[in-house]
Amino acid sequence: MNTHTVKAYGDELNQLTAEVARMGGLAEAQVADAVESVGRRDVALARAVVERDVRLDAMHREIEKKAIRLIALRQPVATDLRKTLSAMKLAVDLERTGDLAKNIAKRALILAESDPMQPLTRSIERMGWLVSTRLRDVLDAYTASELDRAVAVWTSDDEVDEHYNAMFRELLTYMMGDPRTITACTHLLFMAKNLERIGDHATNIAETIHYEITGDEMIGERPRWAPGPDADKPLSAPAA
Amino acid sequence: MNTHTVKAYGDELNQLTAEVARMGGLAEAQVADAVESVGRRDVALARAVVERDVRLDAMHREIEKKAIRLIALRQPVATDLRKTLSAMKLAVDLERTGDLAKNIAKRALILAESDPMQPLTRSIERMGWLVSTRLRDVLDAYTASELDRAVAVWTSDDEVDEHYNAMFRELLTYMMGDPRTITACTHLLFMAKNLERIGDHATNIAETIHYEITGDEMIGERPRWAPGPDADKPLSAPAA
Repeated sequence: MNTHTVKAYGDELNQLTAEVARMGGLAEAQVADAVESVGRRDVALARAVVERDVRLDAMHREIEKKAIRLIALRQPVATDLRKTLSAMKLAVDLERTGDLAKNIAKRALILAESDPMQPLTRSIERMGWLVSTRLRDVLDAYTASELDRAVAVWTSDDEVDEHYNAMFRELLTYMMGDPRTITACTHLLFMAKNLERIGDHATNIAETIHYEITGDEMIGERPRWAPGPDADKPLSAPAA
Repeated sequence: MNTHTVKAYGDELNQLTAEVARMGGLAEAQVADAVESVGRRDVALARAVVERDVRLDAMHREIEKKAIRLIALRQPVATDLRKTLSAMKLAVDLERTGDLAKNIAKRALILAESDPMQPLTRSIERMGWLVSTRLRDVLDAYTASELDRAVAVWTSDDEVDEHYNAMFRELLTYMMGDPRTITACTHLLFMAKNLERIGDHATNIAETIHYEITGDEMIGERPRWAPGPDADKPLSAPAA
């Protein structure tokens, strides 16, 4: 293998990592904008999020294609193979994160047509802020290759789950108290669920970074797609 | 490369495919049992589904590990590389399918403690049957390497979406008509959403089979995690 080949190979790998980082930046912005569009009842912003999602889909396909080509032509091993496989995995999580942000924006468009539900949209905003922070932290960990930071995100998911469960109860109480709010509350419920799932994707990303850096799986089991207490024990239903 | 190495390599690849097929069988059973446990209010069956899910998680990790080892040590190209990468992708979709089945079973456990809601659980069963059929068909396509069959599953997702949207409206009507059913209906709503997402995973699996066999991406765009009409246009809310 001559120097030229080695250089081109390293370039390709660096380019792949950079593309994942860029995709991460866009996904992060999509989540933040989607949440913002809910709170501000900003129809134009929500529409922009929906329209911008195709870019994440395109980036996902591009990263996957490049990674497969790299594996087939360069046959990377050890760290390089882990970097390449991680890029593929991260692109999947970021694409799904984008889909979830798009779904939130679509629901924001619907909510903008009904009466404002201030205290509830405030809860969505707080939860959205929490999830956005997780996503930003884990993407910082990726670009800086900082293991500790990735592990910190991995171990801190409970906060999001707690927020989701509190929101779930809040929404049920609202619906029972005023059945006219049921349709709007159902959309808010799915928004909260979407944010919880974005939090799960941040956890997945942390696991992938851990694998990329150490070559080991994350120790211990973290439930993914956990239903939260709402599916673990019956809720004490507030009076309607 | 001597004959022994070649043979061992082929064996490894066949074993990987067989493990994915086996994981598919288990995931299929988990979905069917979870749906069955809702209709029959079968607490023992729902518990069995919840407990069995760890096996799918273990299989996912095992398949991923073997695929990575195969890429690193055997450096497969062309069809073999596609087979290996597909195995990794399919294991992810099957693991998530299992998580969703587990979530349905957990909610079945909660519903078993409240009053039966016959017409609604019937709708879940019908939707579950539809989704199970999709999953079975696409796994048949995988084990038989039948491209047409995979494409057929890929093009037939609308039925599940339609069913989900009908259920969404049915559940809202129910909640508004009798706010005491809100908690139960919310669990049924998430069950329906979970089934819709299992349908999406069947679609992903069809795409992966298409890639494995042809080396090309599926033509055209299929929305994943699509919110359905419920998030695309405002619902005409039935009177409470």
